[in-house]
Amino acid sequence: MRLQARGVRTLQEDGNCILVLDQTQLPQKVVFARLTDVQTVAAAIRDMQVRGAPLIGATAAYGVAMGLAADNSDTSLQHILDVLAATRPTAVNLHWALECMRQTVCSLEPACRADAAWLEARRIADEDATANALIGKHGLELMRAHANGSRDIQVMTHCNAGRLATVEHGTALAVVYAAQYAGMPVHVWVSETRPRNQGLLTAWELAEAGVPHTLIADNAAGLLMMQARVDLVIVGADRVAANGDTANKVGTYLKALAAKAHGIPFYVAAPISSFDLNCPSGTGIQIEERMSAELTGATTAVFNPAFDVTPAELVSGFITERGVFAPYQIAPQAALWKA
Amino acid sequence: MRLQARGVRTLQEDGNCILVLDQTQLPQKVVFARLTDVQTVAAAIRDMQVRGAPLIGATAAYGVAMGLAADNSDTSLQHILDVLAATRPTAVNLHWALECMRQTVCSLEPACRADAAWLEARRIADEDATANALIGKHGLELMRAHANGSRDIQVMTHCNAGRLATVEHGTALAVVYAAQYAGMPVHVWVSETRPRNQGLLTAWELAEAGVPHTLIADNAAGLLMMQARVDLVIVGADRVAANGDTANKVGTYLKALAAKAHGIPFYVAAPISSFDLNCPSGTGIQIEERMSAELTGATTAVFNPAFDVTPAELVSGFITERGVFAPYQIAPQAALWKA
Repeated sequence: MRLQARGVRTLQEDGNCILVLDQTQLPQKVVFARLTDVQTVAAAIRDMQVRGAPLIGATAAYGVAMGLAADNSDTSLQHILDVLAATRPTAVNLHWALECMRQTVCSLEPACRADAAWLEARRIADEDATANALIGKHGLELMRAHANGSRDIQVMTHCNAGRLATVEHGTALAVVYAAQYAGMPVHVWVSETRPRNQGLLTAWELAEAGVPHTLIADNAAGLLMMQARVDLVIVGADRVAANGDTANKVGTYLKALAAKAHGIPFYVAAPISSFDLNCPSGTGIQIEERMSAELTGATTAVFNPAFDVTPAELVSGFITERGVFAPYQIAPQAALWKA
Repeated sequence: MRLQARGVRTLQEDGNCILVLDQTQLPQKVVFARLTDVQTVAAAIRDMQVRGAPLIGATAAYGVAMGLAADNSDTSLQHILDVLAATRPTAVNLHWALECMRQTVCSLEPACRADAAWLEARRIADEDATANALIGKHGLELMRAHANGSRDIQVMTHCNAGRLATVEHGTALAVVYAAQYAGMPVHVWVSETRPRNQGLLTAWELAEAGVPHTLIADNAAGLLMMQARVDLVIVGADRVAANGDTANKVGTYLKALAAKAHGIPFYVAAPISSFDLNCPSGTGIQIEERMSAELTGATTAVFNPAFDVTPAELVSGFITERGVFAPYQIAPQAALWKA
């Protein structure tokens, strides 16, 4: 965990602004973008300079604080929340973070709002880092259970649910990093993740961290499982419905089906903030469609959904900061989480 | 079928040489490459200027004829067969065509070999065109059976099993063209087909033919099926084992799993020359691994298989020039095919 040891977070405070690692420049360039107001924050989320459900939530929270520093009126507050909420529809952490911010400031005197909002944004960011460290801890136990003594444990992931998708540690990759830190030999199958190739972000951060990994085309996931070269699949989530249906980067569902076909455990690693207990099932999750230009060379009509929904019955368990839960445990646990 | 109406084949004779549509230039440029000897034929197959199992077979057959025109000795014949056989390991049509050529010429006087070989290569090419037209005819009946009266029939395919992959008509797309020709409204979901993006070839040839289609990332196939936007899947094959296990472009297996999960028929359209009756099951099929550079931006280790194997139980039927068969019918039918 070299970068974590260096303490370089993907999102950093910088006076009254924030610095975020510009993920559209990776892996070619490591450049931090300075976000100074609501508009730059909204653009960074919409254009995916900032991506990953937990990181989007924390970034948007700082966006609210910066917006209130410029105009702390009720009208402004609602406008800020609306602008940020409209950036991306699927990741629930965004809406969760905005609701935390609203509750924190709405009953305060306008003059106090900006400072309180900044502190709340910092709390959300710190809490994400803490939650992800705990996800790593709980996931490590699973890794030990699934380890095949005769070889390095073979983890398959999809998209980037790593340090880059969060404030720190990652979600799915927090488990990998915890295993590495515990001295467990681990190898990660990294799928390219078309159309935006976020798998290259995963390859980049695993290389930084010194974790052995191999890049594959998304299409190769089924063959690898058929060849018994995968011990478990761990992915992140953009939104988990109350029944355990999970929206995550498009292509996750195909990996889940293949894992099921081969009896390979399929885990979703996500903080509680990714659970939308008001959404009964996956059919209620809006799937963002993005521009056709994301598909290279497309001169014809394009359908470009950013996410898909993996039904709960394909999920072996959810690795959260509060432990590992089966899909059927989410609803009963929810009461405890809210307490 | 505009291009077919124009009679422009993907492979054409040109004196003592052949012209092949250079598929590495498509869809940007329509360029024919002139193949003049065994070495240029072998390179064209290896570098995928020529691709698609049936087209590889026909091209290699002409390669044998050109090689024998230069040197018609027994030693030369074996060398020619070895060089061409070594180009790509998975598509069985290559080996089938080379065996046809060997049987045609091996017992002839050396002086007669080159002419006989040329005629045999022409027969193989013409037979491919005829077989594919029949595949279209038999597939059309299936299309009628699966049509959903309330909308255009929604076909999903993978890679390019079209005119470009064959001498004429295509295999999977022969069915689509037959439907179009019969006036059945049809729409094709074209998956990008990473890492080499052969889906763009499919989009190109469907656009040429005026068939409505939409490009998707490979990752989006599961979501589309979950959304009930696919009526049937039709793919080609590089090799079908005697039990019906089918090697085809990597990613086919993931589509087959998703089709099964949603009760969507999954058909393999392939001429008899793609059936390897000496291969009992998919475990006997060698999967070609290609160079890591095919995965853009890869700076780390890469696993890049070109194919995967779809187990027979996921295949609803095989659309061949002799009719449509269930996997269990292949072995009994084989005796008839050989007769």
